[in-house]
Order: sequence, then C-alpha cells, then structure tokens
Amino acid sequence: MEENGGAGTTKWSISRPSAGTPLEVAGTMSIRAVLDRVFSSVDGSGPRPVLTLGSGDPTASPCFRPPPEAEDAIVEALRSGKHNGYSPTVGVLPARRAIAEYLSRDLSYQLSPDNIYLTAGCCQAIEVIISVLAQPGSNVLLPKPGFPLYESRTMFSNLEARHFNLIPDRGWEADLESLEALADENTVAMVIINPSNPCGSVYSYDHLAKIMETARKLGIIIIADEVDKLIENYINITNDPATFIQGAVPQIIANTKEDYFNKILNLLRNSADLCYNKIKETRGITCPHKPEGSMFVMVKLDLSWLDGIQDDLDFCCRLAKEDSVIVLPGSALGMKDWIRINFATDVPTLENALERIKSFCQRHAKLQA
Amino acid sequence: MEENGGAGTTKWSISRPSAGTPLEVAGTMSIRAVLDRVFSSVDGSGPRPVLTLGSGDPTASPCFRPPPEAEDAIVEALRSGKHNGYSPTVGVLPARRAIAEYLSRDLSYQLSPDNIYLTAGCCQAIEVIISVLAQPGSNVLLPKPGFPLYESRTMFSNLEARHFNLIPDRGWEADLESLEALADENTVAMVIINPSNPCGSVYSYDHLAKIMETARKLGIIIIADEVDKLIENYINITNDPATFIQGAVPQIIANTKEDYFNKILNLLRNSADLCYNKIKETRGITCPHKPEGSMFVMVKLDLSWLDGIQDDLDFCCRLAKEDSVIVLPGSALGMKDWIRINFATDVPTLENALERIKSFCQRHAKLQA
Repeated sequence: MEENGGAGTTKWSISRPSAGTPLEVAGTMSIRAVLDRVFSSVDGSGPRPVLTLGSGDPTASPCFRPPPEAEDAIVEALRSGKHNGYSPTVGVLPARRAIAEYLSRDLSYQLSPDNIYLTAGCCQAIEVIISVLAQPGSNVLLPKPGFPLYESRTMFSNLEARHFNLIPDRGWEADLESLEALADENTVAMVIINPSNPCGSVYSYDHLAKIMETARKLGIIIIADEVDKLIENYINITNDPATFIQGAVPQIIANTKEDYFNKILNLLRNSADLCYNKIKETRGITCPHKPEGSMFVMVKLDLSWLDGIQDDLDFCCRLAKEDSVIVLPGSALGMKDWIRINFATDVPTLENALERIKSFCQRHAKLQA
Repeated sequence: MEENGGAGTTKWSISRPSAGTPLEVAGTMSIRAVLDRVFSSVDGSGPRPVLTLGSGDPTASPCFRPPPEAEDAIVEALRSGKHNGYSPTVGVLPARRAIAEYLSRDLSYQLSPDNIYLTAGCCQAIEVIISVLAQPGSNVLLPKPGFPLYESRTMFSNLEARHFNLIPDRGWEADLESLEALADENTVAMVIINPSNPCGSVYSYDHLAKIMETARKLGIIIIADEVDKLIENYINITNDPATFIQGAVPQIIANTKEDYFNKILNLLRNSADLCYNKIKETRGITCPHKPEGSMFVMVKLDLSWLDGIQDDLDFCCRLAKEDSVIVLPGSALGMKDWIRINFATDVPTLENALERIKSFCQRHAKLQA
C-alpha cells in the first residue's frame, strides 16, 4: 500500500527511537509530542498568523462552541451543591440512565444504565480497556491508520500491537483477510473505530457485519467504543469524571436542541467538501476518500512530484516553517508519507490554510512537472 | 504490634482472595468495595437513619461545602468559552503558575510552574507515579496503615509492595528501622503520607529529617505528594483534568478567603476532639493518638473485651446491621482489628454515631467486665 506498508507490526520512523523504555517510547509517540516537533519549526518572525490544522480540537473556533444549554446544565449542577462528593466508580445513576436512554433511541433494543460506564474522556476509556486486556503474551489488532493512544497504551501495558491496514481506495474499510492472517491464539481483541479516526469514513452495514463475523470466527473481542463488565474492577482503582459534570448530564441530554447538532454537522460537511475539492486541485497531494464523519481527512503525499521533501515529517516541518500551517505527519498514526488535516475550524481559516498548502506544493514541485 | 502485624509483605484477610488475577484482587481491595460489603449489612427496615462515617467524603455535609468564590470562578471560566479545548498534558500554564506561587508561600525557595503537574485528583497522581516506577522485579515501601490505592495500583503494575509499620504509640511515626530492613537493591521508592491518611498525625520536622536521611542512605525516591520530570511521558498518554476547571484555578486561589480555611480547620479540630474524648469513654475501643490533620481517626478494637466479635469486618458489619452506622474495617488499610472513622461530618451526626458505637460496644461487652 505504501513504502513501509503491509500488514504486521511495523516500525514508526518518526516515533519509535531505537532505544528507550516502553514508557519513553510510548510518551514520544503521542500526537501532542509529534505536533510539538512540527510546531517548533514555525518561523516566529513571519508576517502571517499560524494556522493550526494539526490537533483534533475544534473548540479553538467559536463556531464549535458547546450549546448554551450544556453550559447552563453544568452551572446549575455546580450551584446546587448536590454533586460535590465522590461518585460511584462507574458513574452516577441518573447520568448513566440518561445516556442509556439517549443511545437506545437508535437501537432495536434497550440499553440499561448497567451497560454504561462513565470515564474522564475517551483517553481514560482506552486506558481502562487496554489495561484490563493486558495479559503476558497477548496481542491486539489495531487499525492502520488509527488513533496512536491505542498504540502507546498497548506498548505501555506490554501487549503486542499488530496492525491491519485500512484500504483507502475502498473507503478505508478494514482489510479483513490480512487481519485474519495476523491473529493467533494469543490475540485478545481488535480495535474498530467507526466513524474512522483519522480517515473520517463511515462503514456500511455490510462491512460491519463482516467485521463481526471475523471477530466471532477468531473468538476475539471488538473494541468499538463499547465496554462491558470486565472493566468494573479496573474502574475501582482509577479516577472518575468530576461529579458535578456527571450531575449535569441528564439536563445536557434533555435540553440540547436538535438544531445544535444539525448546525455542527452542516459545518463539518461543508468543510469536508471544501477540503476535498481544494486538495483535488493541488498537485503533489491526493485524498483517496472524502470524509463522511469525524473531523479529519487523510491526505497522501506524492513525493515523486515534490522536490527535495524527504518524508511526511519533513513536509510538515517545512510547511510550518515556510507557511505557518500546522498539520499532523501521518507517521504519528502509522502512515508514513501521509498527512492528517483537521478541518473542524472556521471556513476562512480552513480556506487560507488550504491555499497556503497549495502554494507550498507548487513552490516545491519538481522542474519536469 | 498486632496479630497479623510485623514488617514485611502481609496478607489482608479481608481483601485478598486466594484466587484471582491481579486486577480482580486489586479491584476488590478498594475502600469502596469494602464499604459496599459493610453497607449491605444495614437493616433497611430499622427506624433510625443510617450514619456513614465510612468514606472520606466530607461533601455530604453542608458545612464542608466549597467556598462560593470557587464556584464563581468555575462558572466564570465555563461561561467565558475560553477553556473548552484540550489542555497541555501537564496542565495549563496560568493554573500551574498560580499553584506554584501559592505553594511557595510556605517555602524558603520558589517553585516554578514546571514543578507542577495537574492531575484529575490524587487517584490519578498515584496511578501516574506508580506506573512510571513499575519495572520488573522492583518493589516499593508502603506505610501500614496507608491508603489502599497505593497497594492496588502497585499490585496492578506488578510491583512488589512491602509494608513498614507506623507506630501508634509514637504518633504514628514511621518505623524507620524496620523500613531499612525491608529495602534491598530492587527498592525504588517509599511512600510517606503526611498528614497521615488514615491516622491524622502530623510529623515533626525531626521525624521528616530522619525519613529524608533514610531515603538518601537507601538511594530511593520519597513519594510525598510531589512529582518530578519522570512523569512527563506518562502524562502524555493519560487523561487530563477538565480544562475549564483548570481555567478557574487562578481565581479560586486568588479569591478564596483565609476565613474559609480557618472555619474548616476549626470544624475539623473540634470534631477530632469530640471523637477522641468519646472514644476514651467507650470500653472496647481505644484511640492511641488524637488526629492533628486529615479527617480520619484510627481506632483499635479490643476483641478480648467484645463478646463474639470475630474481627474488624465482623465488627463493622454488625454495627451496620444493628445500629445503622458505617465505619471502615481497618483491614482495608492493612490494619486488622482496627477501624477507621471519618469525622468530617456535621457535629450532631458525629455525636449520634459515636453514641451508637458506644451503645454497641456496651451491648457486646463480655459478662466478666
């Protein structure tokens, strides 16, 4: 699929120094650590503002501000003084009940509050799940590209990570044949991220059914933003989300208007279109699949077209230095010579950044082109 | 010192089932899991309200409500919309700076913001510290009694825990001779909790100097609610405290009046006195050392005086059943046949609970007494 591609455990040139403890390696593999390296290339004396499409944090832009109803609910929960104590380790019941009901709206069956565990963000959920799976000699199957926290937590827990490819030309579907070939009797789970982070693709019912079938055949767990009873012991020994925020959850769910979600979805849909079209007219980079979910697009570098650019890290550092635009090197996600662009920002910023990227590629085009 | 006492690694009858994975064992060792067992003994049909002095959560009582200035600061940070994004992994700079300045007030030197790492509560700080120390074959020295999360995180990280005694008749000072005897070339750290949780003692300058000297001699780290650069890689792969709460920290520190702390300290001091005096007049239980800090008191059971009570768990379950009072079995803290009472509650509740404990002990006194 690409130079260092192919299924199996791969080395990340950007992020895995040859020496170092698992902790040191895991720490430097984080997206933040890689972005720090790119950021340090910015020429601070340049005349133009720095445009950051590197991290997946839409809150920098006012158009993605949380709904006022959510703020109201948190303020009310805080002012009530009723949610200041320790919560049960799995989360407070009213919050879990509200979430179970909310999620059940789109299901043919009813979730119970016992199916819901509250964690301090997705990072903690990943930490919990990987920690409970960590048995000596076990391995987990991770998508490539994927979310690098899975990789670093896996490494930190002394689990082996094995990577199956997502296929760009098939809407980033999982390559289930190579996935099957990777699995053995020590495989405990596969990670499926849908909508894909970072590819933004949304899997069809058919593909999801095939994934389920494969997992059943291999006898392994699917980690798909769902957790089960396994995690209760671990939750007992880790930290909880702030109780007063949990206290606000039922009101947040009850009061946030459908309009809010529609507005955000429209913003993201338009920005995905904008990105996709702009990349199409830029020589030197290609986007095999327009994002249908998430807030990221994966973009492939054509190094045969770009003069003197060595790899994705080099591309990102020079783009930061010359044009004050920050994007994430794909190597941080296991995808050498790709970049990840976050399009969850306001439209003028996005247009400006894409224009600078285009100009950068033109300036670095090989002469024969 | 007591039946199962003596320095070294000990078995906790209450909390370590003979079978089970480290995760299962670690999970059932939590204070919450033990309190759940005690709570299930309560006779729900009894006429009296249940009084819970079991968990260390003062917020159930309105007199320990956080200051309004803190609530105001959090509301303001939330409403500003400026603190909704990801924070740096170590915490936002203004919060770390405010904390560094605040802590420096009592020091002869100046802390820098780089000395401060923000975690989602103490549980996460412990998790971070133990995780970074976890090297195969290593061991850590933990105080007995102590805070069981150290024990469970240590076990979960496959570190060996070795327990040194705190000596009740010497103000719960660490038994440094036995501590030295426990250490070997694989010892990486000792945990010192001061003011002691759960004993409430505050160490003298002299004792702290001796602890420092011992650590220096052994060449090991002291874990004393202080963290250092070691943890930065781990912080990269774990979760952060909510950004808008971090955003409120400078205002919380700047605006909370000294009166607030004085009021809370007076409440705790009076409650500690009340506890100590009431226990003194109760046959069957003794308190060797009045708490000078914290919100707990450790109380020793005299089983030779109490008729038919088998151990601390039995004492607590029968007290819950007969008198609807919840206290923590000392075994959960490594202290068989002790109990831990949380006195951070309103005075009428505390008086009522202590009266019920006294009556319980009288009813269960052996006849010869």
